[in-house]
Amino acid sequence: MAEHLRKLFYPRAVAVVGASRDPSKIGHIVLRNILSGGYQGRVYPVNPNAEEILGLRAYPSVSSIPGQVDVVVVAVPAHKVLEVVEDAGGSGAEYLVVLSSGFKEVGRADLERGLVERARRHGMRVLGPNIFGYVYTPSRLNASFGPSNVLPGGVAFISQSGALGIALMGYSVVEGVGVSGVVSMGNKADIDDADILEFLREDPRTKVIIAYVEGVTDGRRFLEAASSVSLRKPLVVLKAGRTETGAKAAASHTGSLSSGPALWEGVLRQAGALQVRDVETAFDYAKLFSAFNALPGPNVLVVTNGGGAGVQATDTLAENGVYLRELPADYVSYLRTFLPEFASTRNPVDITGGAPDEFYYLALRRALEHPEIHAILVLYCQTMTTNPLRTAEAVVRAVEEVGSGKPVVAGFVGSEEVRRAISYLLERGVPAYPTPERAAQALAALYRYAALRRVVERRLEYLRTIGERTRLLGERRAVQP
Amino acid sequence: MAEHLRKLFYPRAVAVVGASRDPSKIGHIVLRNILSGGYQGRVYPVNPNAEEILGLRAYPSVSSIPGQVDVVVVAVPAHKVLEVVEDAGGSGAEYLVVLSSGFKEVGRADLERGLVERARRHGMRVLGPNIFGYVYTPSRLNASFGPSNVLPGGVAFISQSGALGIALMGYSVVEGVGVSGVVSMGNKADIDDADILEFLREDPRTKVIIAYVEGVTDGRRFLEAASSVSLRKPLVVLKAGRTETGAKAAASHTGSLSSGPALWEGVLRQAGALQVRDVETAFDYAKLFSAFNALPGPNVLVVTNGGGAGVQATDTLAENGVYLRELPADYVSYLRTFLPEFASTRNPVDITGGAPDEFYYLALRRALEHPEIHAILVLYCQTMTTNPLRTAEAVVRAVEEVGSGKPVVAGFVGSEEVRRAISYLLERGVPAYPTPERAAQALAALYRYAALRRVVERRLEYLRTIGERTRLLGERRAVQP
Repeated sequence: MAEHLRKLFYPRAVAVVGASRDPSKIGHIVLRNILSGGYQGRVYPVNPNAEEILGLRAYPSVSSIPGQVDVVVVAVPAHKVLEVVEDAGGSGAEYLVVLSSGFKEVGRADLERGLVERARRHGMRVLGPNIFGYVYTPSRLNASFGPSNVLPGGVAFISQSGALGIALMGYSVVEGVGVSGVVSMGNKADIDDADILEFLREDPRTKVIIAYVEGVTDGRRFLEAASSVSLRKPLVVLKAGRTETGAKAAASHTGSLSSGPALWEGVLRQAGALQVRDVETAFDYAKLFSAFNALPGPNVLVVTNGGGAGVQATDTLAENGVYLRELPADYVSYLRTFLPEFASTRNPVDITGGAPDEFYYLALRRALEHPEIHAILVLYCQTMTTNPLRTAEAVVRAVEEVGSGKPVVAGFVGSEEVRRAISYLLERGVPAYPTPERAAQALAALYRYAALRRVVERRLEYLRTIGERTRLLGERRAVQP
Repeated sequence: MAEHLRKLFYPRAVAVVGASRDPSKIGHIVLRNILSGGYQGRVYPVNPNAEEILGLRAYPSVSSIPGQVDVVVVAVPAHKVLEVVEDAGGSGAEYLVVLSSGFKEVGRADLERGLVERARRHGMRVLGPNIFGYVYTPSRLNASFGPSNVLPGGVAFISQSGALGIALMGYSVVEGVGVSGVVSMGNKADIDDADILEFLREDPRTKVIIAYVEGVTDGRRFLEAASSVSLRKPLVVLKAGRTETGAKAAASHTGSLSSGPALWEGVLRQAGALQVRDVETAFDYAKLFSAFNALPGPNVLVVTNGGGAGVQATDTLAENGVYLRELPADYVSYLRTFLPEFASTRNPVDITGGAPDEFYYLALRRALEHPEIHAILVLYCQTMTTNPLRTAEAVVRAVEEVGSGKPVVAGFVGSEEVRRAISYLLERGVPAYPTPERAAQALAALYRYAALRRVVERRLEYLRTIGERTRLLGERRAVQP
């Protein structure tokens, strides 16, 4: 199944039906995004009334395109979509990406069924309809009418919501979260979350998946796909319609029948998914998991130049099930060799408000090398005698010199300069956040993911045992007279 | 008591003892901040080894200053502080703001007691020691060694933590949260949270107070002061040391004995304080309460151009105790006159992804005028055919034209342009946030505050009843033979 989707994400050629010269039209924006994104395959605009669009020769139909087309992006009004299916049917295309709206979401379930039936008859699968398209940065393919500037990275984001999904593409850039893919799910007439999850599970470019879900068509299949993902990489789920009023709102939005919140919560936990309630936390987690996903040992070191930030982080870690322990005696002795007397060498280590960036470097370097320290939360409060960027540089220097791969997460608090330091850290692979609590919560998610993965492993093991028993029972029965 | 502090916040003249020409010294930074902040009173640098500092004549001692000094900022090493107290004692100064560290926090409780005793003998009160100073924007006074750029506004922020407090001054600017005051509490040797709260309660320039607290010296007094604040304006409390490990960290930070988390939670609820767990939420709430604090009626309208954002906001509102209701029929009919057929006119109202800013204007304007709609959450997802800034302008236009004072809160999601639109909204008094959930959570805090205030009112009423009964009982006994 997942191999099937390979050509959707690595197409040799893409046709855009409904390509337009009018810059306000979706059929223009999506073509422009494909071209400006640097996609290396062939691109064919299809429009019977144009000779050339955005410098490319236009074709009157998909069937008139001379080369092989793998993906046909459809941006024509709903009533014309069936024609496009017939036209594309004979071309050998495997995927129809139907941006057009005007199907089930406006009561035209009949039109939607017709679309899928005809596509299937021609051996094509449908993404959509009613979507903003999709992006896959390993192919440099931005076949969406979302923003053109996409930051490449390890986060795949699938969204049932259109406008929110597009907006979150922009949000991810501001937050410095690089993406491998963005997939607009829309009405999920054919390809659904489970299909996409199965592809992303196998995709080495995707380190973590965020799924914005209002409802799913096949709960059991979703559970199985999500479980198999969780065993490989973290799946962060933003389940909308968690409350009764929220579920009602979801029903009038995508027509999703949102089952009881308690049911969903149980299903998602069984699937090992990290459930979050807001987009900020979803992207905060994704930022972390882009860099790390293996369970570190239990000893988290917190280094801070502000006692208050240390206390807040300690509380947040504990509220998320991670408890600070005593530091190894030799590490404490080492800290004593350069820290001022009034610094606190208990965990959280307070290197004091005026700490030069060298203190960060020394404390981190030794901690990264120390076998009994397993993860590090580095906090910085901007004071007048310290420099955010130089502090960030000290952190990166220690991380790069030791190269241990040990999780290091940063919480930097302060002014605009601090925001630049955060960008600097992110660009160098250190997940960084503007408050101590967001940093601590993200680090704690690493432990939460490991615990959830164990839940899935146990559940699958149990199912295997049951299966084995049933088989044995069957054999025994078979040999009995 | 509160009147006593008036001269601390509205001093006629300020002396800085330990003023320095060396830009790396605290005694330099604080003097420079006072000067660059635009403070209109007299400023006297005190330094026996200098004639002039930052263009001002320097004095060898406080007692040699010719004019009246109300506040003496002390930035000399701890062992010299007692001398300064004696020197300032005869000058008529009322407040010593002792920045110096090296007191109780390093085991020198004796030095700290001596400081307060001597100051009291001279009729002076002490803020600190071990603080970064204070800021009060109505006086344009920045007597701190924090950042020099402070955004004036309605939020007062008091912090027991130094470095975190300084860093949050920078954070407040980035987040667009204007402050009336920032007070570093440090060791609270004399002036404590309750004193500052009593001043801020009466201060018309302060609309909301954030208190970062690790522990208090007098729990009962804090409870009473906090309760009396809550009756007048919202008090947002960030209680650090909520967990066992966090409390331990707090103990080694400020030496605060953090009582059991459950106890604190109960006390803060009784005091009507809005408890938050992270600095982001604290400032999010403050942003809201700078603009509004009266309880609106129960009908919240959500307007969105993205269904998903609407669902998320609906969930977050419900998770915070606010449930969307049906909209008035005449309002729905009105929406139908201009919205496309496929728009959803149920609450949350989905004006569709491509909605022009005019739709926002029309929907908001009528809602602001409608007597049965009491608060509005306006959500915007950046799409390629809409403009964030023009949408923000449409919101502000409706708000300003109607001028109803009805709460309008914005959640705008998207790229850098959206961040600029958020700044635009904030500058015009519309609390705005980068995600639907943060906006919804802030709006819900308005209802939470009202509920908490009722708790305080009932408790005080109960105490009055008890008091009255005890009095009557006493009278009855007195007349009995």
